[in-house]
Amino acid sequence: MRNIKLTIEYEGAAYLGWQRQPQGMTIQQALEECLKQITGEMPQVIGASRTDAGVHARGQVANFKTDSAIPVERIQGALNALLPRDIAIVAAEEVPEDFNARFSARSKLYHYTIWNQRVRPVLDRRFCWHVRWPIELESLRAASACLLGARDFAAFQSANAQSETTVRVIERADWELNVPRLTFAVEANGFLYNMVRALVGTLLEVGRGKITAAEFRRILESGERAQAGRTAPACGLCLMRIRYEAPAPVSSP
Amino acid sequence: MRNIKLTIEYEGAAYLGWQRQPQGMTIQQALEECLKQITGEMPQVIGASRTDAGVHARGQVANFKTDSAIPVERIQGALNALLPRDIAIVAAEEVPEDFNARFSARSKLYHYTIWNQRVRPVLDRRFCWHVRWPIELESLRAASACLLGARDFAAFQSANAQSETTVRVIERADWELNVPRLTFAVEANGFLYNMVRALVGTLLEVGRGKITAAEFRRILESGERAQAGRTAPACGLCLMRIRYEAPAPVSSP
Repeated sequence: MRNIKLTIEYEGAAYLGWQRQPQGMTIQQALEECLKQITGEMPQVIGASRTDAGVHARGQVANFKTDSAIPVERIQGALNALLPRDIAIVAAEEVPEDFNARFSARSKLYHYTIWNQRVRPVLDRRFCWHVRWPIELESLRAASACLLGARDFAAFQSANAQSETTVRVIERADWELNVPRLTFAVEANGFLYNMVRALVGTLLEVGRGKITAAEFRRILESGERAQAGRTAPACGLCLMRIRYEAPAPVSSP
Repeated sequence: MRNIKLTIEYEGAAYLGWQRQPQGMTIQQALEECLKQITGEMPQVIGASRTDAGVHARGQVANFKTDSAIPVERIQGALNALLPRDIAIVAAEEVPEDFNARFSARSKLYHYTIWNQRVRPVLDRRFCWHVRWPIELESLRAASACLLGARDFAAFQSANAQSETTVRVIERADWELNVPRLTFAVEANGFLYNMVRALVGTLLEVGRGKITAAEFRRILESGERAQAGRTAPACGLCLMRIRYEAPAPVSSP
């Protein structure tokens, strides 16, 4: 059987997230239904990240197995013709049979975008969290520094989530300001359910001066979800890239 | 009477452009109807640029006269509460009575964004023109150089437009590439009807190798609209800024 890797861009607003579910349409289901039309088979599409309802992606990765002989460029073209305007296949390639979009992933990069201005965003309103109160960038950066490396993120997963281990390795956690846009870039070998949004919600408590960077660190070390702040809204989150090769050597910016 | 200056952001998709007209809703009408609710008067809102149907703005400027004593910050807040999600007042200030958003403007900056990639855009689809064929950036730049300074742009106005003079002074006409996004930044003391979109459509004929930069220059000098290329779609165009003070001294980048 052939194994096809897809790189996918989508706007999450109209979907109940990545993973198939009975309550409504998901990205996975939209892809599988189009692939059924193209190949005549019912391939299961495996996604690298199970993004939540409303979360966007510029670089989600998925794979599926097929017996079809259709060239990979034609699969991509047919998918882009069939898929709705809020999903597109950015790239498609044939990969070795043992490639699994989820389990072969080395790291995932997410961006979380905050619109930090009193006036509500218009052109950017679908892709950010509008935060009216002033945010202290240096406090955000100071607090985020303690996230780097292998850490237990039990304090930042959803109450109802079950993961074998709650330890993840964060290799990057940067804030960049491009007034009024404030972007959190976070890259790790994986994330717990709702982890990025819980981190952003709690980091903003630091950024607005409600808690200190030291208190943020204690929340992380406590491992208790109740200590952390609110979960930031889904529309500010975007899955940017999945890395599969060994990561390049880390260099200072 | 007080004179209030507004800086306005809007997504143009749902509107028939800036200027009031009987066929449907416009930005000017949406603003005037909200101001009527707020002030009880029927103020006429004068816009700096009469943007076309579907064109966006981050920095449109307008002004209106009022006898109302409501503080300007409260006018802004009330407008933002009443206006639909695709229009917002970014700033509001009281200005001298002789300020006229249209006639006091010194220069206007527009951005035109092209998505130059085979695959259609998803997250950016509302704000760009999707061009699949390869574009030669250096040809675009070479052709755009002849636009600078005082020129007669009769070849780049809509057939049915009537302006007293078709001479405009372009002070900036830059192309910037941020793959796959290609942005044309053009600033002038004013633009003829549809001029930026006609320029972009014709410049892309150069960028794809259909005509040379020298031929583009001849089209400009011919003054004949029939010579120019197609008009680029409205959704790629965004009014970024209106300048009212004397322009700052030009410095090299």
